Amino acid sequence: MRVIKGGVTAPKGFLASGVKAGLKKSGRKDLALLCSEVPAVAAASFTTNRFEASPVKISKGYIAHRTHQAVIVNSGNANCANGRTGDRNAVSMTRFIAEVMAFDRKEVLVASTGIIGRYLPIDKIRRAVPALLGELSEDGGGAFAEAIMTTDTVRKEAAFSLKLGGAIVTIGGACKGVGMIYPEMALGKHATMLAFISTDAAISKKMLECALKDAIEDSFNMVSIDGDMSTNDCCVILANGLAGNPKIGTKSAGYRLFAAALRELCGRLVVMMASDGEGATKTLEIEVVGAKSGADARAVARKISVSNLLKCAVYGSDPNWGRVAAAAGASGVRFDPDKADIYLGSIKVLSNGASIKGFDKNKARRAFLNGKVRIKVDLKSGARRAKAWTCDLSKEYVAINSEYST
Amino acid sequence: MRVIKGGVTAPKGFLASGVKAGLKKSGRKDLALLCSEVPAVAAASFTTNRFEASPVKISKGYIAHRTHQAVIVNSGNANCANGRTGDRNAVSMTRFIAEVMAFDRKEVLVASTGIIGRYLPIDKIRRAVPALLGELSEDGGGAFAEAIMTTDTVRKEAAFSLKLGGAIVTIGGACKGVGMIYPEMALGKHATMLAFISTDAAISKKMLECALKDAIEDSFNMVSIDGDMSTNDCCVILANGLAGNPKIGTKSAGYRLFAAALRELCGRLVVMMASDGEGATKTLEIEVVGAKSGADARAVARKISVSNLLKCAVYGSDPNWGRVAAAAGASGVRFDPDKADIYLGSIKVLSNGASIKGFDKNKARRAFLNGKVRIKVDLKSGARRAKAWTCDLSKEYVAINSEYST
Repeated sequence: MRVIKGGVTAPKGFLASGVKAGLKKSGRKDLALLCSEVPAVAAASFTTNRFEASPVKISKGYIAHRTHQAVIVNSGNANCANGRTGDRNAVSMTRFIAEVMAFDRKEVLVASTGIIGRYLPIDKIRRAVPALLGELSEDGGGAFAEAIMTTDTVRKEAAFSLKLGGAIVTIGGACKGVGMIYPEMALGKHATMLAFISTDAAISKKMLECALKDAIEDSFNMVSIDGDMSTNDCCVILANGLAGNPKIGTKSAGYRLFAAALRELCGRLVVMMASDGEGATKTLEIEVVGAKSGADARAVARKISVSNLLKCAVYGSDPNWGRVAAAAGASGVRFDPDKADIYLGSIKVLSNGASIKGFDKNKARRAFLNGKVRIKVDLKSGARRAKAWTCDLSKEYVAINSEYST
Repeated sequence: MRVIKGGVTAPKGFLASGVKAGLKKSGRKDLALLCSEVPAVAAASFTTNRFEASPVKISKGYIAHRTHQAVIVNSGNANCANGRTGDRNAVSMTRFIAEVMAFDRKEVLVASTGIIGRYLPIDKIRRAVPALLGELSEDGGGAFAEAIMTTDTVRKEAAFSLKLGGAIVTIGGACKGVGMIYPEMALGKHATMLAFISTDAAISKKMLECALKDAIEDSFNMVSIDGDMSTNDCCVILANGLAGNPKIGTKSAGYRLFAAALRELCGRLVVMMASDGEGATKTLEIEVVGAKSGADARAVARKISVSNLLKCAVYGSDPNWGRVAAAAGASGVRFDPDKADIYLGSIKVLSNGASIKGFDKNKARRAFLNGKVRIKVDLKSGARRAKAWTCDLSKEYVAINSEYST
């Protein structure tokens, strides 16, 4: 497995584009398209928010189709809380592509991100479709990644290649999402984090679903910027088989290699999201070890990752680890606090539930001065572990989110 | 029922004091005592955080005792994550009072609030006990309310009187807590919100427990400042019977009057807490109506109350109600989003799940410019309702919490 340049157009047979449809006040790119040159199998995961956006409803319906060829995405408007009009507009977006490309409408998935509650200016999208199709290219991954951004300050792309049965398989991805980020995505059901992954691997739809589910559990579902779950979260992967590897149809050695690469790719995208979190000045990685189960480890890590108090302490480089203990204890997970240890960077500050007298406060403070802060909690009640990612809570975060919509 | 002046010393037979023990760097009052002149019955509720502080462990053990006469409280140090030393120190605090006053040690409850993980300077407390006892007075409610404050900017006290069977019964309370506030307290089990309530009502311990449980469910357990549950939350009520009312021993008409007054008192204290939330410039009241069950209504209201995005929007007077919808949908409660309505103040912005075109944006903005912002969500799937309280998320909140411990 090796890191290569590029994003969604790194694998064979994928074209992408990103254009300006006029949905964003800023006048930046806001309409994106990813296409496979040949029919691909797809797997997707969507938000579990009950106020799901229209594109989520439509894509959830379409994902059961046997093959898929494209994903159309707009930024600047969530197409959420728009009633039946919203549903019709989401369908129209898929139809605009299907008609020109002679795809079945269900072969085109749709995703949106932006402000909730404003009606989607569908005519602006319709008028931008010829340019969107015209710009499709093997070098379009960057434009695609740019057009899906909202409050993001940088494009988020990654790609890996690996050898599978003599063939070179490539996986590429792009994502956006630096606010309203606390995805809890469920596969085939319900993920405004948006992530789009393409691969030229030959793999069955069923195995692709398995690999995506595994990858999401330890990556996208473990990132938080603000603890607010979006109505539009969505993660889609398309696999077109053009790499020519022996088709992955069971949980074989090939599957395990592919799944590991996909997990790695998702992990890389997640760290990019946390680093670019709204107002973020630091990234925070929380590792929980010694848990009874993976679910326990994830629940404790995730609860710590949404602590506003801890996130403020990290912002201020104040090694106030009591906030880590309080958050762990509030997770609802049963563990023995009298056994727990806490580390800030490499400094142990809590041992068997009791504060370590005279730990090196300057060293602890230095651990918080880092751009990447690491916190570890050892529950010492089992062998399972998990990591969660977030960023600090800054005055800039408040500024961004008190001024966003108007 | 009528509002009267004062706090914990408003009811007959209660004395209180607050002194400086030197626990706070600021040099402010940090040790408080509430005493009943005669044995009282007590009920209490404690945090459900697994990292519970030593005073919580000790008071949970003592609350089963038949009678209680005092509560000793320190601010400036949480006595949490202090291991066995912490437990011994919490017991010492109760012993200091019990020995001088000739109470059973279990008749003295203890609570602490402040930074987690520093060892409690018990000698400073021991040295301040004579002054604490010397200052006990019928006018000491204010000093008590002051000595329990941490980042609070104002004292929080309230009192009510009501007629019960010819007698005048008084209930008084004081509370603190403007950060690390997301109480989930369970009665007799586990509640750094601290609330202390005194009453001269004659009531059985069992009925007192019932009344407290009911009151907490709709008040303290529905307030959030930052979504961070403390290791030290605790709410205690003492009832000494000196009002001479016919003793409340069943769910009689007298009980209902008393319980309603207690709920009202707790509700008033909760609004004081939300208004004084760390960095708060506005109070936010969220009402959920039309829910299938009380639990559903509370869960939706509470989830909305912890939305950082909504709280930033309120700070910026930006009527971005999509954040209300997203939070409601993320609550885990099952409801039909296509039936839901949302109001900002008196302005309806969402009707049957669809955005209302052309709602009065200036009027909506005015609803957010108020010092007290009201949001209502109607799920239209039942008849149950609930209210939750919080405050906006300001740059000042981040400043306070990035500088607190050092």
